[in-house]
Amino acid sequence: MLIREERIPCRIARDILDTVDRGTNFLVTSHVRGDGDSYGSQLALRAFLLSMGKNCRVINSTPVPESYKFLQGASEIETASIITGSFDATFVLDSPCLPRLGFDSLDIPSMGTLINIDHHLGNSRFADYMLVDTSISSTCELIYELLNCWSWKGDSEVGLCMYTGLMTDTGNLCFKSVSARTFQIAYELVASGVDHYRLYNDVYRASSRRRLALMGEMLRDFSVSDDLRVGWFVFGRELLDRHGATGSEVHGLISQMMTMKSLDLAAVFVQDGEDTVLEFRSSEAYDASRIANHFGGGGHRNASGSCLRGDALEVAGEVMGHVLVSLEKYAITGGGGIFQAAAC
Amino acid sequence: MLIREERIPCRIARDILDTVDRGTNFLVTSHVRGDGDSYGSQLALRAFLLSMGKNCRVINSTPVPESYKFLQGASEIETASIITGSFDATFVLDSPCLPRLGFDSLDIPSMGTLINIDHHLGNSRFADYMLVDTSISSTCELIYELLNCWSWKGDSEVGLCMYTGLMTDTGNLCFKSVSARTFQIAYELVASGVDHYRLYNDVYRASSRRRLALMGEMLRDFSVSDDLRVGWFVFGRELLDRHGATGSEVHGLISQMMTMKSLDLAAVFVQDGEDTVLEFRSSEAYDASRIANHFGGGGHRNASGSCLRGDALEVAGEVMGHVLVSLEKYAITGGGGIFQAAAC
Repeated sequence: MLIREERIPCRIARDILDTVDRGTNFLVTSHVRGDGDSYGSQLALRAFLLSMGKNCRVINSTPVPESYKFLQGASEIETASIITGSFDATFVLDSPCLPRLGFDSLDIPSMGTLINIDHHLGNSRFADYMLVDTSISSTCELIYELLNCWSWKGDSEVGLCMYTGLMTDTGNLCFKSVSARTFQIAYELVASGVDHYRLYNDVYRASSRRRLALMGEMLRDFSVSDDLRVGWFVFGRELLDRHGATGSEVHGLISQMMTMKSLDLAAVFVQDGEDTVLEFRSSEAYDASRIANHFGGGGHRNASGSCLRGDALEVAGEVMGHVLVSLEKYAITGGGGIFQAAAC
Repeated sequence: MLIREERIPCRIARDILDTVDRGTNFLVTSHVRGDGDSYGSQLALRAFLLSMGKNCRVINSTPVPESYKFLQGASEIETASIITGSFDATFVLDSPCLPRLGFDSLDIPSMGTLINIDHHLGNSRFADYMLVDTSISSTCELIYELLNCWSWKGDSEVGLCMYTGLMTDTGNLCFKSVSARTFQIAYELVASGVDHYRLYNDVYRASSRRRLALMGEMLRDFSVSDDLRVGWFVFGRELLDRHGATGSEVHGLISQMMTMKSLDLAAVFVQDGEDTVLEFRSSEAYDASRIANHFGGGGHRNASGSCLRGDALEVAGEVMGHVLVSLEKYAITGGGGIFQAAAC
């Protein structure tokens, strides 16, 4: 099992397990506006902690969307703007820095030992123990390797949690971050009883008529630069109102825009209350993470985001003004460090 | 390697290999309006035949679309309305019956020994040797098992051909037909050097602005039955003309409609010259293959199609009139034979 030892440094795996052994009360948390990888990794880790006889609370700053409520333990995830309670240790998953959690404020001492398990760029090195690998497909893949290191096998419901992150964070095993080992893990999970078809029905066949209509508006009308390399679309207040929709309903639609062959960069701007949520996707030619950094956000090299105060149409004008003029500043020229300066 | 022996009956594998050993000139063909599975399986088999020192022509009745031209050997695929030449044996791949090939006529004696390798319902048992398994994800999965039986390993370009069918025929390993073994094969292919990211860029990131705009029209405007279980859309002459598009450009967009959670059946009607191409997708509740059968077509239980002469709007009216009234006739009640009466 060399592959595991190479991927998860033994010392870190042992240190984290020691922390678990010594403690009683644990907190597990992840980024605001969660996704398959954040929920999957939190709930798999929760299952492990419970199996060890520990107390474990999972607290997020935004509620679990309908499409992930099928995951075992999802109903136990608490939503709060501030974390209350005192913990021996806190697992911060799928997040490169504490502001990404989205809480109004954090009482760090009450969180105990901080353990960060993540695969995003821009890690601010805030934790006592860090298991961070930006070359790995998903936090769920890291959790799978870690639980393997500890020789713990959950049941197929725990497997489904990890499988969910593995698939949703990779465009179903499509992205460049997917390695042969990622496929092997998917195989091991399905062979051990994970019902992969359930994920398909619960996550991929989960659109409302309204969400599809909004995707239709975007695909019909998105703007493209003269050289066909940059596409963008604004889900402004008027459009969302016309469909009776909120900003949270269009999260992730940008992926469909990015299927346009010539695009090197896609941007979507979504009015969300008084804020505008920015989403970016890029080809291998540009670093979407650095573009998001410029606007106070972060993420991965080819998928990133941010959130700015203001009207979506105005924010889009400002951001696209910068992006279209300065695009070459964000060109990927090869190499590149694993850790970038944190900008969140 | 028990799994292989169980999946591919040894006798059939040996009979087919004997036929290859004895012959010199081979024809490989597949269904009209090919897809990733038909091109992938044909080109992988072609590579094997060439490696055995055989002559091999691949002839299809419709041309290879741009998005599959990256497959090794794709430029050697001939397009013709009639097959000319004489062959020791003909491999009919990914097709349950000869009319599905789409040729104007066939001179059966000149095709030599007929070998059918397929996973579709409705097989008409036309071949001398049949390797047909409707429980398997893709014809490429069958080809992989067969080449494995013969202990032949192609290079990573051949692997990419098989990987392409494996992924495109399963909605990227999402559909119910995907088994643990399918995942294992995907792992084996990627571990042996298949560049899975290339498939993503060449097939999934291959949309034109126009195709996305047409997807947008469909998603914005498709009709839904009162009970929200049936959705349908017509790509009529006027709509296609307005976008300067031909019917072939909207093939497969129906999958996106089917992501609507409540849908049990989706139907799309596409004007293609004087014909209307019908596409159906269904949930586990209905048998889309039998609906297509009713209109002279065929396919899989949850993905099927047909082609009728006439105006798309009129054909849609007639077909949906039948479907909406008679839907329960096509309900899946459990069980069901592997082979259905051929209707193509």
